[in-house]
Amino acid sequence: MNKVNKIAILTSGGDSPGMNAALRAVVRTGLYFGLEVYGIMRGYSGMMEDDIFQMDSRSVANIIQRGGTILKSARCKEFYTAEGRAKAYANLKKRDIDGLVVIGGDGSFTGAMKLQAEFGIPVIGLPGTIDKDLYGTDFTIGFDTAVNTAVEAIDKIRDTADAHDRLFIVEVMGRHAGYIALHSGIATGAETILIPEASTNMDDVIASLSEKEKRKKLVNIIVVAEGDAFGGANEVAKVIKERLPKFDTKVSILGHIQRGGSPTCSDRLIASRMGYHAIEALLAGKSNVMVGIINNEMSYTPLEIAIREKDIIDEDWLRIVKILAS
Amino acid sequence: MNKVNKIAILTSGGDSPGMNAALRAVVRTGLYFGLEVYGIMRGYSGMMEDDIFQMDSRSVANIIQRGGTILKSARCKEFYTAEGRAKAYANLKKRDIDGLVVIGGDGSFTGAMKLQAEFGIPVIGLPGTIDKDLYGTDFTIGFDTAVNTAVEAIDKIRDTADAHDRLFIVEVMGRHAGYIALHSGIATGAETILIPEASTNMDDVIASLSEKEKRKKLVNIIVVAEGDAFGGANEVAKVIKERLPKFDTKVSILGHIQRGGSPTCSDRLIASRMGYHAIEALLAGKSNVMVGIINNEMSYTPLEIAIREKDIIDEDWLRIVKILAS
Amino acid sequence: MNKVNKIAILTSGGDSPGMNAALRAVVRTGLYFGLEVYGIMRGYSGMMEDDIFQMDSRSVANIIQRGGTILKSARCKEFYTAEGRAKAYANLKKRDIDGLVVIGGDGSFTGAMKLQAEFGIPVIGLPGTIDKDLYGTDFTIGFDTAVNTAVEAIDKIRDTADAHDRLFIVEVMGRHAGYIALHSGIATGAETILIPEASTNMDDVIASLSEKEKRKKLVNIIVVAEGDAFGGANEVAKVIKERLPKFDTKVSILGHIQRGGSPTCSDRLIASRMGYHAIEALLAGKSNVMVGIINNEMSYTPLEIAIREKDIIDEDWLRIVKILAS
Amino acid sequence: MNKVNKIAILTSGGDSPGMNAALRAVVRTGLYFGLEVYGIMRGYSGMMEDDIFQMDSRSVANIIQRGGTILKSARCKEFYTAEGRAKAYANLKKRDIDGLVVIGGDGSFTGAMKLQAEFGIPVIGLPGTIDKDLYGTDFTIGFDTAVNTAVEAIDKIRDTADAHDRLFIVEVMGRHAGYIALHSGIATGAETILIPEASTNMDDVIASLSEKEKRKKLVNIIVVAEGDAFGGANEVAKVIKERLPKFDTKVSILGHIQRGGSPTCSDRLIASRMGYHAIEALLAGKSNVMVGIINNEMSYTPLEIAIREKDIIDEDWLRIVKILAS
Repeated sequence: MNKVNKIAILTSGGDSPGMNAALRAVVRTGLYFGLEVYGIMRGYSGMMEDDIFQMDSRSVANIIQRGGTILKSARCKEFYTAEGRAKAYANLKKRDIDGLVVIGGDGSFTGAMKLQAEFGIPVIGLPGTIDKDLYGTDFTIGFDTAVNTAVEAIDKIRDTADAHDRLFIVEVMGRHAGYIALHSGIATGAETILIPEASTNMDDVIASLSEKEKRKKLVNIIVVAEGDAFGGANEVAKVIKERLPKFDTKVSILGHIQRGGSPTCSDRLIASRMGYHAIEALLAGKSNVMVGIINNEMSYTPLEIAIREKDIIDEDWLRIVKILAS
Repeated sequence: MNKVNKIAILTSGGDSPGMNAALRAVVRTGLYFGLEVYGIMRGYSGMMEDDIFQMDSRSVANIIQRGGTILKSARCKEFYTAEGRAKAYANLKKRDIDGLVVIGGDGSFTGAMKLQAEFGIPVIGLPGTIDKDLYGTDFTIGFDTAVNTAVEAIDKIRDTADAHDRLFIVEVMGRHAGYIALHSGIATGAETILIPEASTNMDDVIASLSEKEKRKKLVNIIVVAEGDAFGGANEVAKVIKERLPKFDTKVSILGHIQRGGSPTCSDRLIASRMGYHAIEALLAGKSNVMVGIINNEMSYTPLEIAIREKDIIDEDWLRIVKILAS
Repeated sequence: MNKVNKIAILTSGGDSPGMNAALRAVVRTGLYFGLEVYGIMRGYSGMMEDDIFQMDSRSVANIIQRGGTILKSARCKEFYTAEGRAKAYANLKKRDIDGLVVIGGDGSFTGAMKLQAEFGIPVIGLPGTIDKDLYGTDFTIGFDTAVNTAVEAIDKIRDTADAHDRLFIVEVMGRHAGYIALHSGIATGAETILIPEASTNMDDVIASLSEKEKRKKLVNIIVVAEGDAFGGANEVAKVIKERLPKFDTKVSILGHIQRGGSPTCSDRLIASRMGYHAIEALLAGKSNVMVGIINNEMSYTPLEIAIREKDIIDEDWLRIVKILAS
Repeated sequence: MNKVNKIAILTSGGDSPGMNAALRAVVRTGLYFGLEVYGIMRGYSGMMEDDIFQMDSRSVANIIQRGGTILKSARCKEFYTAEGRAKAYANLKKRDIDGLVVIGGDGSFTGAMKLQAEFGIPVIGLPGTIDKDLYGTDFTIGFDTAVNTAVEAIDKIRDTADAHDRLFIVEVMGRHAGYIALHSGIATGAETILIPEASTNMDDVIASLSEKEKRKKLVNIIVVAEGDAFGGANEVAKVIKERLPKFDTKVSILGHIQRGGSPTCSDRLIASRMGYHAIEALLAGKSNVMVGIINNEMSYTPLEIAIREKDIIDEDWLRIVKILAS
């Protein structure tokens, strides 16, 4: 067991549903193991501005079901400088905080790594990102909720597509990772799914749509990740409108609704489990790792690798998508 | 009682949730009163192309809860010409169809009026539009669902706004009527609501936001109807970003998700009630009127007036909005 | 204008979705008009136990979308005695509270009337009940949410009913008022709806089901209000199983889920509007009345009448139900 | 590759959300590989009654998002006899159907095994059960939806529990498997979770509640699987009411709503993936196995083992539950 007595916790980067469930688990597990637990408001901003407060069990009551994060989140440029981090760390130091849990994505982990390197404080990362763009875990907190929100939205769009025999190009979130597009596209019976991880052959898309037109299948959904190399939904629509003017083509960009909402059961579970194990990891002397779940076992991936490496999307899925949308 | 024996029904214009519930009510009430009932596919397009089929009770089974419209909808330019309408009417005539129920909005009613004027066929309109932009009814089929969809979406956006202390400009549907913006804005505690029916004083908006900034109230939602004279959400955001650069301002355009989805209880009820009374109205010899509900009583407004006149939005609401968002 | 300077607010009886939206409106409108506003915890219990605190604008931030009530609710037997009420009123008196807003149903209003009669304090009631069992208003706070929750639940049950060709008897809330049953039954295409306000002829129900069996229509939903004179869903099922043993008959009692959840747009709107007008009414010197909405206008019904009189359910609806479920 | 030319598919046992998505995948993948595909109505009943029809791509259009099963399901006693099965198989034989895909749970698989044993027809099982009570797969089709439905329901109940400082005993489905209880209980912050797989020490439950009462934590949720050895929610409530009369204890039995509804993204994905691989398995000569997913890889478990063996619930979770609910 590590000598950890006082820990702090923060959420950083884009918020994701389940962050509150993770906070609850970290705080209550910490208290259970006899630690003092401090909450830091607005990520590294609050650390620098000394917006830090002690948390008890009640601090996290009735939040497991809430979207967003009660500790708030923010970007903080000053923290990118060594001076900024020194100032921020001083606020932990003066409280004798000797462990830090960071819930967020790659930017958040980068900050945590630097704090650890410069001041030796043990840090544990929890993967809080709707995009599922971290290596070393089958799940990230918020992904399941985001993808279900996308599915519900596309189901609604399909009602309209179906009523009007329309082709809808729907853009979902995912700058570097196409998982939201891939999962929501499969789940809504999309004709084609365009993602950053696979190259898009627009000729194939056009050919497939033309063939469907002949069979009088006019209702089609194409799901595009915002980070697809071809461009977002508007770019895709432009090409299709030019080459298939007969189609009644519309665009829908789902946008920020994908970040919010009450977390799904799965997101609450993994957040709870990861939060519990973040404390166990700290107590076991682990540091500089992200807590993840791989094949239903806990995994601990160095933060650097969690950020740098990329999952490989199984391109088989893209083939299956075509078969099932036939 | 009118001598009506065979009626046809169609849905036209933008689809709205509850159209299927209305179809079910029209078909089953018609059958109950001994009529033959025909469904016309894709609105006036199907009427012209003779895509017409006889419906029975089973045709509308298990659809009351479905968004969209099983009869589909479409725009049809040819129908704007007298020749087009003659061709279309011929397809009713050859089946001895002597009554028509049209579910849709202003364009759909215009078509119905012309058919009635030119060929004498009795027509009844049902208000199927999410925008609530018809005169002579407290409810239109689909409005309640659309506004609840908007509210759920804005609730999700608020989670993120709250996590990041952000100002969100949310654009909802409503080209000529601000009801979706007004209702969803009140229901989500919006700071300001911009609608076509009221002039927007951007200086007031800026002043109010500045005053809130001083009080450290940084989380704000502004709801904008797409048809607001100032422009949509992007225009509003441009001005605010210029004049209040400190605010973290984001835009979200809800778009087509507002049209789809399973109808709310209220939309299913009014659709059922209006559908029932559409048949009663036809049998009672009414024609050229829209069936509506005013103060919980059925009302029958000439189609021409339903299209032309405008409800007056109670500007008191805009004052209350400001008080409640304080 | 009345000389009201300090008001208190409480929620009492069964909680209903929208109570928080009403609290928010009362508090912020009160503050806007320069009043001091006090919150009383757990209804009359908290009044007696002096669990009263001053509220500001922030006290009601971010609650418009929450189910339940942040002021909590409770039953309080001691308050039924004159001594109890004297003790409770003393806690208002010592703070110079000279106005009271009570959100709740008949029991809550009875308490308010007694306080008014015995101590002269002006009281305003807001109809907070999912059952819509108060006279003098077209809407009660929470009804629309409850009925939509029931509809969503019954839609799910219909999936299963449909998969198994089953008859489901679904019991919804409503001890003295059948509105939840009536609205949710119409909206889900129920075969029959049993409510306290109409007598149930079980022979007719059996005959109708038998006739449907002959037509091979085996999927049927019967919606029963818990307060129906025939008994709840289990009683109804017992009779049907005896007399129609061939039917695969199942019971589902929806229960407490009908009380909770995020309020619908409509509930948030009427709660906001009523909350605003509760303050206007107090300032205008009104007392002992319930704020309601009739035909889209504010109405003010003496509490005694709001409790005692009953709405008449339009039995026409029950006839339409039969036609539409055919 | 196996010589399979014509396959049939059926759904059997309790319906579960995602069965339609699985049907769609099986049908379209079968067609893609050049097979003829037949649908059998109402499980083994329809097989016996020759209610079998050929399916094309359109047969499964627009169903991926629908709860229930378009092929319906039923129990069939006659099929338990050798004569019954011979009669049923004859209807496959006469169409030269040489492969069968069965979507369902243990009873459905038992039937499939017998058909295979008696007539040599290759059979593939897909795990369609909300209870997750089959061995050899991390997911069953419908579980994720059911558990999310339970979570949403319990969230609503918590609103009311919180408003009234109540203890709620919530019963969820699960006769032999406690997964729905376990997952929904963790996700809703339940105080205790009672499941068939773990023995319930009621003294501990009482002691924990008593301790919480001292800390004034009166709002508590206990989630009970219907198959818990102690008895269902009503039994648990009886004991608690006797031993802790001060608690305001209520029971809610969620019941059949857990079976229906539009499937979650995850259920649609696994259903699609399993459906695709059911065909691949048949073509590869596999038989008498259930297609499952273990650690994100396809797995093929003999039907007999899938039925007989049991997963072991990680009791660690029950300990974490206590820590997190503190």
